[in-house]
Amino acid sequence: MTRSLLLSNVRLADGQPVSVSIADGRIAALGAQVEAQPGGLVEDGGGALLLPGFVEGHTHIDKTNWGQSWYRNEVGPALTDRISNEREWRKTSGHDAATQSLALALARAFVQAGTTRLRTHVDIDTDARLRYLDGVFSTRQTLSDVLDMQIVAFPQSGMLIRPGTVELLGSALAAGADVLGALDPALIDGDPVASLNATFELAERYHKPIDIHLHEPGEVGAFTLKLLLDRVEAMGMQAQVVVSHAFCLGALPERERDALLERIAHLRVALLTSAPPSRPVPPLKLCRDKGITIFGGNDGIRDTWSPYGVPDMLERAMLIGMRYDLRRDDDIAIAFDCVSNAAAQGCGFSDYGLHVGARADLVLVDAQSVAQAVVSRPKRRLVLANGRIVARNGELVDAV
Amino acid sequence: MTRSLLLSNVRLADGQPVSVSIADGRIAALGAQVEAQPGGLVEDGGGALLLPGFVEGHTHIDKTNWGQSWYRNEVGPALTDRISNEREWRKTSGHDAATQSLALALARAFVQAGTTRLRTHVDIDTDARLRYLDGVFSTRQTLSDVLDMQIVAFPQSGMLIRPGTVELLGSALAAGADVLGALDPALIDGDPVASLNATFELAERYHKPIDIHLHEPGEVGAFTLKLLLDRVEAMGMQAQVVVSHAFCLGALPERERDALLERIAHLRVALLTSAPPSRPVPPLKLCRDKGITIFGGNDGIRDTWSPYGVPDMLERAMLIGMRYDLRRDDDIAIAFDCVSNAAAQGCGFSDYGLHVGARADLVLVDAQSVAQAVVSRPKRRLVLANGRIVARNGELVDAV
Repeated sequence: MTRSLLLSNVRLADGQPVSVSIADGRIAALGAQVEAQPGGLVEDGGGALLLPGFVEGHTHIDKTNWGQSWYRNEVGPALTDRISNEREWRKTSGHDAATQSLALALARAFVQAGTTRLRTHVDIDTDARLRYLDGVFSTRQTLSDVLDMQIVAFPQSGMLIRPGTVELLGSALAAGADVLGALDPALIDGDPVASLNATFELAERYHKPIDIHLHEPGEVGAFTLKLLLDRVEAMGMQAQVVVSHAFCLGALPERERDALLERIAHLRVALLTSAPPSRPVPPLKLCRDKGITIFGGNDGIRDTWSPYGVPDMLERAMLIGMRYDLRRDDDIAIAFDCVSNAAAQGCGFSDYGLHVGARADLVLVDAQSVAQAVVSRPKRRLVLANGRIVARNGELVDAV
Repeated sequence: MTRSLLLSNVRLADGQPVSVSIADGRIAALGAQVEAQPGGLVEDGGGALLLPGFVEGHTHIDKTNWGQSWYRNEVGPALTDRISNEREWRKTSGHDAATQSLALALARAFVQAGTTRLRTHVDIDTDARLRYLDGVFSTRQTLSDVLDMQIVAFPQSGMLIRPGTVELLGSALAAGADVLGALDPALIDGDPVASLNATFELAERYHKPIDIHLHEPGEVGAFTLKLLLDRVEAMGMQAQVVVSHAFCLGALPERERDALLERIAHLRVALLTSAPPSRPVPPLKLCRDKGITIFGGNDGIRDTWSPYGVPDMLERAMLIGMRYDLRRDDDIAIAFDCVSNAAAQGCGFSDYGLHVGARADLVLVDAQSVAQAVVSRPKRRLVLANGRIVARNGELVDAV
């Protein structure tokens, strides 16, 4: 990792031709006049567009069937149908993130397509206990050189409604999970006050940030969100909480919504959206205008919940662009921001971006503009992670 | 075209292994025991999934920049901004569907990805007159062996508000356009009664079906739609009208919506949706339950309106599936129906499907199920159009 590399002949989003000098896994210099170090390697970028490595802000690699035989979905439509079906299926089908290496296969596919940072929510329940977590720890370890992975301990089957889950979440955090997850305190756990209190107490005890799945719609979602913001404020957890999905913010009267957005901005709570086309979504540009960090993620990919999604953050940016009807080039750049800078900010990935001192996580694509990269999703010409070339012409290099 | 071909070793959607015997461009036999004709060619399908050729129900190949330098979109948000911008840009930029062969490039890309029938709306206005139409006629002629193309004469810049347009539409129909187009009789033309009357009179005079772009939202769209249905009934144009987009049907109170759907079903009016994630859409499964033909299309691809879209009907089926939250395999099959059987039905393409006597338009993909084909959009292993192999392993054969 100490040998230097010059990535020459690439273009920034504004069209400026530059070279990037990389040493010790970091960007050492970036500009028009940057030259190779004596004895260093030189990689000609062929005039391609230089992008920062992509950030997956919300996925579930432990659930995936990526690369496996097709899972025939015959699941009922309710959230609880999907939760029970999955838990039973994983218990009885032999699906196992730890031993089948499905999580690893999906994580490698992310790297192949240019993702160098990733936040994944891992199911913790009283059937599986920490088994899926162990599988994902193993994947994280295997890819530690090339993929910066945050692990969220996530009570997919509910927390208070399944006694023992709080303790398992504590064990998961003690074992190395980075973030405490949570799920619909009213509509799944049935007691928003007690559920949120338990979540914030756990987070405080283990000194961990929170990332909560909030699917609760409209007024009930707004009610839960208000309780959550009260606790962020009371416990001083500013800038340490992400609300994922937050469908309610897409379906409230403007005055009520805007009052919530003001508090969210003030408490530096971040929002995550997968930009689902069939659900209300938080207002992207309005959130940004208010100073809220709002970022993107795939949610699950090829799992028993839903078959959709690919481990390609340019495709997710495209779907975000379509969901929010972003057509102008400057608007589509916002969709890309959701899977790059804003996601790094929202998740708290450090040393991110195209500047001197940042980790050298870089992607080259043949595109005239960021908008074209998002819309046409070209094969990745080159991917660097931690200063090292990890994929070329859409394929992982042998060592990854 | 008279030589026979046996496509052996393929699977139907239900898993049944079959062979397909093709003669004179038609399916001569299809079943488990079908064998090659003496002296006929045999193509081994490698156990792949057999699908009917795809149908693009609504696109605009004359507008596209497919394969050209990136168009930097800085257009304002209103429908009229987009209309004016496009008309001016096409007049001044040198973009020309006839001479630059962009329409041809896009049409060929459709064939490459398995589309064998396509309905395209071509701009007719008092600046361009029939120039774009001539370009698309030329594309249709060039690909006549492999792509069954319907051309809609479409008043993109409005009809009554631009005097001379009615006459140009008449000339377009006389010159060989198959379908009369129309656009927002209230919100663009400003006079829904007069605009619809002119449209139905033109259609009657030239004995052509109608395909109207109806973007008008909510109550005003419902008002226009009612006027339209009155005229379908009065003029006996049952089964000859398509309403494209019909956003209003996604945003009306149920009782009002259902009354309109009953009339739509009764008058055998078909609906087209591109399943836009940022707009209300007609209720897909409810329409089907009521016996309405509802089908899918891309709308424009890489044009000044929007950069999104690819000439791949499996990706459009995926977007339809995501828009309507279709997750079960049997539901995703409905999304595929929207770009195959339902689209052929809605547009009136004849001799369509996987049955004896149908035109041999066939697609092979490596997928275990229709749902997997939709979600993973694999490279097309083989495409046959009119009984002839036109693409192999994702690439057009030389002769196309």
